[in-house]
Amino acid sequence: MKESWSSVDTLETNFRPLVVIELAKGTKEETIEWFTKRIVDKKTNGGAQLLIKPLVTENGGENIYLVGASHLRLLLGAENVGLVKECNDNSMRAFTYSSRKTFKDFADDNQNFLTMSECQYIIKHELENLRAKDEKMIPGYPQAKLYPGKSIVRRLLTNGILVQIFPLHDREELKKLRHTWYGQVKIGYQPLDEIRCYFGETIALYFGFLEYFTFALIPMAVIGIPYYVFAWEDYDKYVMFATFNLLWSTVILEVWKRICAVMTYRWGTLLMKRQFEEPRPGFHGVLGINPVTGREEPVYSSIKRQLRIYLVSVPFVCLCLYFSLYVMMIYFDLEQWALDYHEENKSNFSSLMLYVPSIIYAVVIEIMNRIYRYAAEFLTSWENHRLESSYQNHLILKVLVFNFLNCFASLFYIAFVLFDMKLLRQSLATLLITSQILNQFAESLLPYWLQKRYMKKMKERMHSLKMDTDLSLVEQVNSEKEMGTYFGTFDDYLELFLQFGYVSLFSCVYPLAAVFAVLNNITEIYSDALKMCRVYKRPFAEPTANIGVWQLAFETMSVISVVTNCILIGMSPQVNALFPDSKMDLILTVALVEHLLLAIKFVMAFVIPDKPRDIQIKLAKLEFESLEALKQQMFTESYSYLCDDMREQ
Amino acid sequence: MKESWSSVDTLETNFRPLVVIELAKGTKEETIEWFTKRIVDKKTNGGAQLLIKPLVTENGGENIYLVGASHLRLLLGAENVGLVKECNDNSMRAFTYSSRKTFKDFADDNQNFLTMSECQYIIKHELENLRAKDEKMIPGYPQAKLYPGKSIVRRLLTNGILVQIFPLHDREELKKLRHTWYGQVKIGYQPLDEIRCYFGETIALYFGFLEYFTFALIPMAVIGIPYYVFAWEDYDKYVMFATFNLLWSTVILEVWKRICAVMTYRWGTLLMKRQFEEPRPGFHGVLGINPVTGREEPVYSSIKRQLRIYLVSVPFVCLCLYFSLYVMMIYFDLEQWALDYHEENKSNFSSLMLYVPSIIYAVVIEIMNRIYRYAAEFLTSWENHRLESSYQNHLILKVLVFNFLNCFASLFYIAFVLFDMKLLRQSLATLLITSQILNQFAESLLPYWLQKRYMKKMKERMHSLKMDTDLSLVEQVNSEKEMGTYFGTFDDYLELFLQFGYVSLFSCVYPLAAVFAVLNNITEIYSDALKMCRVYKRPFAEPTANIGVWQLAFETMSVISVVTNCILIGMSPQVNALFPDSKMDLILTVALVEHLLLAIKFVMAFVIPDKPRDIQIKLAKLEFESLEALKQQMFTESYSYLCDDMREQ
Repeated sequence: MKESWSSVDTLETNFRPLVVIELAKGTKEETIEWFTKRIVDKKTNGGAQLLIKPLVTENGGENIYLVGASHLRLLLGAENVGLVKECNDNSMRAFTYSSRKTFKDFADDNQNFLTMSECQYIIKHELENLRAKDEKMIPGYPQAKLYPGKSIVRRLLTNGILVQIFPLHDREELKKLRHTWYGQVKIGYQPLDEIRCYFGETIALYFGFLEYFTFALIPMAVIGIPYYVFAWEDYDKYVMFATFNLLWSTVILEVWKRICAVMTYRWGTLLMKRQFEEPRPGFHGVLGINPVTGREEPVYSSIKRQLRIYLVSVPFVCLCLYFSLYVMMIYFDLEQWALDYHEENKSNFSSLMLYVPSIIYAVVIEIMNRIYRYAAEFLTSWENHRLESSYQNHLILKVLVFNFLNCFASLFYIAFVLFDMKLLRQSLATLLITSQILNQFAESLLPYWLQKRYMKKMKERMHSLKMDTDLSLVEQVNSEKEMGTYFGTFDDYLELFLQFGYVSLFSCVYPLAAVFAVLNNITEIYSDALKMCRVYKRPFAEPTANIGVWQLAFETMSVISVVTNCILIGMSPQVNALFPDSKMDLILTVALVEHLLLAIKFVMAFVIPDKPRDIQIKLAKLEFESLEALKQQMFTESYSYLCDDMREQ
Repeated sequence: MKESWSSVDTLETNFRPLVVIELAKGTKEETIEWFTKRIVDKKTNGGAQLLIKPLVTENGGENIYLVGASHLRLLLGAENVGLVKECNDNSMRAFTYSSRKTFKDFADDNQNFLTMSECQYIIKHELENLRAKDEKMIPGYPQAKLYPGKSIVRRLLTNGILVQIFPLHDREELKKLRHTWYGQVKIGYQPLDEIRCYFGETIALYFGFLEYFTFALIPMAVIGIPYYVFAWEDYDKYVMFATFNLLWSTVILEVWKRICAVMTYRWGTLLMKRQFEEPRPGFHGVLGINPVTGREEPVYSSIKRQLRIYLVSVPFVCLCLYFSLYVMMIYFDLEQWALDYHEENKSNFSSLMLYVPSIIYAVVIEIMNRIYRYAAEFLTSWENHRLESSYQNHLILKVLVFNFLNCFASLFYIAFVLFDMKLLRQSLATLLITSQILNQFAESLLPYWLQKRYMKKMKERMHSLKMDTDLSLVEQVNSEKEMGTYFGTFDDYLELFLQFGYVSLFSCVYPLAAVFAVLNNITEIYSDALKMCRVYKRPFAEPTANIGVWQLAFETMSVISVVTNCILIGMSPQVNALFPDSKMDLILTVALVEHLLLAIKFVMAFVIPDKPRDIQIKLAKLEFESLEALKQQMFTESYSYLCDDMREQ
């Protein structure tokens, strides 16, 4: 059987395993044969022309296959996915095989021209674009329907025949990366370029943002410390701090766009053309004609989806929001009870009890956030969005609204209904610190500990099998396939988003928040790095040019924080003392200042260019060149026509 | 001499004059010979390969030349400028000569495939792209320096050798257009498609916006009338009117984007690729290397420009704004004086006198706006912007800020400093009506009258020369070259922008403003149409896909109007009566409502898609097709590589 799907390419001696495919146990022989044949088949026959080898283990095949590709195949694939690489003249250009000699570090025998994660991304792309031709179903599984153009891998995944596809770690590289990243105790930047080479742009950009954001918080933290130390309560100092914060938060978000552009230009993703978006794997519907592609594919009525959104999802979200507010009211009852208890008893225990409601509430909030997250994912996938991007947007919107209310409703209530600044400060501190501790624990330490325990077990089993202790490829694959899957940067960004809320929304009441945020983020960098390198399977690289919808989310938060801070300052007794006669003047002044600040924010966001000047020039240069090339081509064509025309006359 | 620059093409019998070139009197022979040779020269020799004929008049050549082109040349030019035309399958595609058969209405003998204005646009584009090769100067004019790649026409224009280039009217078409547009008394839409065919997309889009805006104002006008008739002063009715206005203004601006997308898709400009922007004619500097194109061209330091902007332009604008406020204060003194005079005399004359200050002020505002306009144009061109778009943005910003303050400062003062609603209503009415009358007069009637008088004179002269009365080509050219030049839609949009301000900023005080705006706009359509068809030279068509920066200007105005209207409602005695005990509650409520309205506005702007669904699908289809074509091309290429590779192995 193995001979039938080995082509000329498969015989290549230097087969380098890049991606692992795990099929379900008991997958039928004919299915395996058909699938592997499609993978190695020539491009002209509709195959992917990749290399595949079964992983031979001691106790027989476990339906695990290793996928690789010839060097040439990978280069052509790089052209196909539109990879952008650096040229000899230091400009970034889309890689094409015919112009390969002009690229930096390119040599026909240089296997490292493409990084391993790029190779894996190419293979993933090729596998996902392996499409059914005239098959009506997956051989051996009549219920797994196919139609011309349907991605085979996606159908195999949705039908559970394909358990998972994941890229292999490169143990040598990983070791080096771990060392430079968090292996040594030093103060300095993260090795973002190395992270990008190993994990891809999306993850590198997250770590870049985390680092940038931490640095950006330092001025706020530094200014905040004396407020706490000297217990400054002067009105002018608070106003100064809040104003600084507001302008600062606008500046850092705008500057981030520029830094992001510089980074993604260097990585080539800023120039990468957007690929046509295929339906997401989970999308289902009756077969119909797609109006855009003209192809047969599942079609789902937009009206049905709208009905699902507005009649089910929206009411559900509202109900959850109501429930969250209800829980908040219970918290305030508890708080009151604890206060009464303390008043009555005045013991050490009772003063400790004062903090208990807040801690319980923080834990409950975290739990509710996590449960709601699952519900939101379920609902959004039930809404049956055709595109991954639209699914993501609806999911993010649902989760953000709930998380925002859940985390900040009690603070808003304390600030603007109870007017209790002391309680606000105390709640803010408790919420911030508790949620940070919980997050660090649930995100990294717990999985790390589980992973450690599992590895220990594995090793014991291995030893009992009396195999050599040096981890072979088989062992590597077997250990990696059991590792957890990293589901993307969503949770990490969400955590930063909420942290930004704690820091900026009530910054003038609790200047110390920034200090805690900075401390948390420094450990966060390490625990996230540990998580990526040790706990999870290697994720596929995802090229991206920016942090997407999170930019908008952070900007919205910074607009809201202008409003809250202005109100807080207006409510402070020091400011009230300035307008002893007329509350009205006070409110009008505050409103005026707020509008001015908002106007300044918008003007600043408008005036600061999103890309630095040199990047702008480089982009303009590329655009100019492509236009010139087009013109040249047209000119040659039209010249031939004009010559013909003259000859005729 | 004439033989030397006539090529094969020039001998074509059906020469159709499209564009007129007027050279300065006394231009040297060698210059004319060189210039005309470059125009008719072959593309391969760096010429434009157009046709040119001198206009032979009775009293000898007047240095006027007619430019045309062969049908084939125009088709190739259409491909070059990237014209988008409708295909046989009703989709819009960029025209290419090789795929010409697939386009609707294309036939080799159909000279009307391209509209006349498209042909003229192509010729203008070809003339402007006639570039110097190795000439160091314009022959005969050593002071008119040239360098490789410099547009010859632009250098001739800046040196005054070329007086003007303008497209000829098509008398037959114009007659038809005039008839359908404003010749008959009927209620209905304007013939926008015909306007677009004749005048191009920019002008058609202006008339489309004017019409849309007028229709959009009608609901506001209709709702406003009963407020005036029944003198409704109830608080709830005012709040309803203002709320309706605010949401309505958001909706109409969003819907306009959709309508605009539909129109420009039909016209093909939505799909037109942006051309690389060349330096504007007036840009000057020392010769250097452009970092983007790598070509030798004038370079002007960005720092110098910034210095000019921040050290000269900004202070000047501030000074003008101060002066405008100073004039406003004089107006209030006059107003007070008139009031005192009326109090003392109580005669008919004195009550008439009450209106005099407002009218004088309105006239002064108009005069100041116009003077400032010239100053702004001078300053902006002195700032020496490299690109036309950046010049335009700086000019528009300068003019908008001044016009806004000049027109609305007095109203703001009356509303929020004097708190005099009666005076506000009266001033608003006077300002609005006076400025409308002045505009109509200065824009159309005056030029029309001047034009009429000139034509009469011309005709008399013609008669005295005893020529036949049927207007020949010579007469047409001679009369058109004396007509005024239409400088673009800037002033027309500005007028609409200020009108939108009058209508929306204080809408809850003077609901009748919308009625006046509607009435004005109906006559405005006619007077603008008259202006385009009768008063001005035919302008070159300018392809455009939207109304550009004006969309942003209108949206900003509608945000400001939310703030002003909320304050006005909060100040009304009816609303004050609702909060008899606490002014504070009133202000807080108003602020809350304002923030809610602003939030709703932003959410609405975000939620309403900018393009209708069917246009989105059509655009996605085009994108998909081009991606597929690219993939196909790559596939063919990579297949050949892979085959080679296999053969080698």
